[in-house]
Amino acid sequence: MEQRISLVTLGVVNLGRATEFYRALGWSPGVVIDDEVVFFQAGGAIVGLWDRGKLAADSAVTDRGGWGGITLAHNVGSPAEVDDVIAQARAAGARIGREPAATDWGGYSGVFIDPDGHPWEVAHNPGWSLDETGAVRLA
Amino acid sequence: MEQRISLVTLGVVNLGRATEFYRALGWSPGVVIDDEVVFFQAGGAIVGLWDRGKLAADSAVTDRGGWGGITLAHNVGSPAEVDDVIAQARAAGARIGREPAATDWGGYSGVFIDPDGHPWEVAHNPGWSLDETGAVRLA
Repeated sequence: MEQRISLVTLGVVNLGRATEFYRALGWSPGVVIDDEVVFFQAGGAIVGLWDRGKLAADSAVTDRGGWGGITLAHNVGSPAEVDDVIAQARAAGARIGREPAATDWGGYSGVFIDPDGHPWEVAHNPGWSLDETGAVRLA
Repeated sequence: MEQRISLVTLGVVNLGRATEFYRALGWSPGVVIDDEVVFFQAGGAIVGLWDRGKLAADSAVTDRGGWGGITLAHNVGSPAEVDDVIAQARAAGARIGREPAATDWGGYSGVFIDPDGHPWEVAHNPGWSLDETGAVRLA
């Protein structure tokens, strides 16, 4: 198995609400299938939005609700950009789980929670490189 | 907010067990921090393994256990490669949630569940392109 992720699918309760939230963050859907699935090109990967119950069944897991041990992160080039993205998420209606601040690992980050409870850390990590395509590399 | 994912952190109960599982799939850790966090370079993104309780606290969410509405996928170039990766996951001790088979969306996929309950769909989607770097693009 190669070392890569192709697709991250986020289970949602209301596809329209979730799509509008990501649109408000500046994202544009690349493909919409039968008003049921929305795919966004996300760098060299894809982010999907799909009904959470259908995703659970398709994934062969039981859904007890709430968070399930996966957190996404979006890295940016500076602390100021962290502030900007968190402000944008707040304006889009996200709950801000953690206000932007210096972290104990030497970076700067904040957390927003999307309308379906999926947390995104927005981070500046000076130890990782971020190229012009948005790809992130370990030091 | 740019359209990309930098990092996917998987909450784990036992870091050693989780690391060995991904090693058995052929992955090599890029950075290990204080025997507490393991990062794998995963294409232009990064996959992290970290204590699930600490990840929940850092993510400002409550953990009720179980799956939480996020499923990862690993796309490959052919149905035969789906079979190969699912066989590799089975040999590494994964639960196979769904045996490889043709899907109603015109592809071929199976699902394995990692030792911490995180599902991965392994898929061949003839409608998406997969380049030599492993990047996936919507049609």
